[in-house]
Amino acid sequence: MTKVGIAAYGITPFTKDDKKIESLLFESSRILLKNNPRIQKNDIDTVLVSTNNNSKYLSPILSEMVGIQPKIAHSIENLCNSGTNSIVSAYSYIASGLADMVLISGAERYDSPGQILEWDNSRGEYKHPIFWASIFTSSYKRKFSVTNEQLAFVSVKNHKQAQNNPNALSKKMYSIQDVIDSKKITDDLRLLDCSRSCTGSASIILASESMMKNITDQPIWISGIGQKTTSAGFTKNDSFNSMDSTKIATQSALEMANKTIQDIDVTEIHDAFSVCEPMALEAIGLSKTGEGVSLIKELYETENYKVNPRGGLIGSGHPLGATGIAQTIEITQQLQSNAKNRQVENAKVGLVHNMSAAATSSTILVLEK
Amino acid sequence: MTKVGIAAYGITPFTKDDKKIESLLFESSRILLKNNPRIQKNDIDTVLVSTNNNSKYLSPILSEMVGIQPKIAHSIENLCNSGTNSIVSAYSYIASGLADMVLISGAERYDSPGQILEWDNSRGEYKHPIFWASIFTSSYKRKFSVTNEQLAFVSVKNHKQAQNNPNALSKKMYSIQDVIDSKKITDDLRLLDCSRSCTGSASIILASESMMKNITDQPIWISGIGQKTTSAGFTKNDSFNSMDSTKIATQSALEMANKTIQDIDVTEIHDAFSVCEPMALEAIGLSKTGEGVSLIKELYETENYKVNPRGGLIGSGHPLGATGIAQTIEITQQLQSNAKNRQVENAKVGLVHNMSAAATSSTILVLEK
Repeated sequence: MTKVGIAAYGITPFTKDDKKIESLLFESSRILLKNNPRIQKNDIDTVLVSTNNNSKYLSPILSEMVGIQPKIAHSIENLCNSGTNSIVSAYSYIASGLADMVLISGAERYDSPGQILEWDNSRGEYKHPIFWASIFTSSYKRKFSVTNEQLAFVSVKNHKQAQNNPNALSKKMYSIQDVIDSKKITDDLRLLDCSRSCTGSASIILASESMMKNITDQPIWISGIGQKTTSAGFTKNDSFNSMDSTKIATQSALEMANKTIQDIDVTEIHDAFSVCEPMALEAIGLSKTGEGVSLIKELYETENYKVNPRGGLIGSGHPLGATGIAQTIEITQQLQSNAKNRQVENAKVGLVHNMSAAATSSTILVLEK
Repeated sequence: MTKVGIAAYGITPFTKDDKKIESLLFESSRILLKNNPRIQKNDIDTVLVSTNNNSKYLSPILSEMVGIQPKIAHSIENLCNSGTNSIVSAYSYIASGLADMVLISGAERYDSPGQILEWDNSRGEYKHPIFWASIFTSSYKRKFSVTNEQLAFVSVKNHKQAQNNPNALSKKMYSIQDVIDSKKITDDLRLLDCSRSCTGSASIILASESMMKNITDQPIWISGIGQKTTSAGFTKNDSFNSMDSTKIATQSALEMANKTIQDIDVTEIHDAFSVCEPMALEAIGLSKTGEGVSLIKELYETENYKVNPRGGLIGSGHPLGATGIAQTIEITQQLQSNAKNRQVENAKVGLVHNMSAAATSSTILVLEK
């Protein structure tokens, strides 16, 4: 079976702009093709679109805009981890021999319908993700005796790191006190604890080993994939202070890549809310249980960019269907030593963590040079 | 690489009922599991949902309703061929080794948003599919000197064949004159020339060769896959009386299966409108160009069920996301000799044709015992 890797990428700034979903998908695809002149457009035999937008037939529309006639073309949706679901699907199309080169384009508008969890009746009237995040925050703080100040380091660190990401939504740095004093959304959540939905697009090309050498001298290989869905409604979770789907997906991905967690040099974590970053670090195994916040404080104080170098979802913004692809682009840039002033030194193996709806489903990707 | 086949299926009646999309997806999945007691639910490691419905996160929701915790879970949309796109995706997950057993569930409500082609500005105010179908009908009739009476045989045949399909929407037979006298929708289309959107669900399980023997003694293998997207807007088509994407997809599928068109014993054709059946038969190669209507008349007069035994979309109804899966179930039943009074004698190789939006994209599957 062929190796599958990342051959090229393109990404737009994350903004609050009012743009059409078709234009957004096209924009990052156009940037990708412009920056990678060795790609022959007609070699792209599959086009996958990742979005929560309600528009239909977006993959054939994007294909027509780009000027290609692929074999396989469809949209993929799974709320906030639509992006990595699309990447895994593209991987399987190539590994199975059905495709050789796949364009995956993810985009979202600031007013995405994926922000409201209409389907989960267990939520009653509380259908916005902030309500599960509030319960997670309350549970995590109580269980591990974590203070608001400790949690605030997530937002302070990620807003700071986002200043070195030219595409980030956040253009400002904040102090611990700024976070604690920001607008109260629920008893346990402040405004600066939340990632913000936004308008943005990210595209990536996956290719088989034989196609790869025509396109790039810096391929990044997908060596590990792990996915797990534990439920849809977050009240089915065993606990509100751990992420079981993330834990299981990480084990599968590391096993497939034949790596241990000690091998991971840089990681993108799905910090939809500040509490998600320590919880995910613990589930992945980068930190002991209950010690995620200490690791985050230490990383911040030592200016170590190893976790969420581009600023995470809190710093970069969270255009749902584009997020998992943007995370994968960041790790690609890190492993290619192309991350400029966000660069983690000597990064050889990276990990992407992308999840949906209170970590009821998670994707983990392991990437290597 | 493992062979991939169809291990089990479940389907609901196609109706005009007002049911929730989640209930519909669950209904055909429940029927599938009830009818196949050898399936261990926990062996299902991937759940794909095929629909045009705007609800999000439907695959984790269905998984929770079914009581399973899959690895891979997401929704797939590509208008009317969402169903076969999902089947091809499931095939690639299994062939690549990422999955062993995939539940694919397709469902739609009668009021599906996939019926209005909002995105195609080349259509001006004419966004309903009947407008491209009207242009196709007019062009096909003019090019090949085809009469309304000749085209009416498609509807007469498919409504008749649907009477042997217990799940079909149509409960009535019609004469040639009934079709010609039915309500005029456009200059070239009558009501009985159109498939009707409806409420329905169809589920299928794909499995690897090693899993298959635990589940069924009658596996049906997917031996050929072809897909092609030529454009999104139908005005980009080279002609309005041929289906290029279907032609190209058929060539790929037959080549992969190492078969010729003469090997095909039974076929499901995407007759969204009556003109689509002869056009598709010609593109696939079951008929010479311009002679599709003669073949259809002959099949009708000799009571040969080889084309659209379940009544096609015109007779069965067209619940968009379920259609491609229902077509695949029909060919599976035919090859298993389980099609009762619709059975085509001695059927060994079957073909599914599923397309979207004026044949701007097509999927072809070749299935074998």
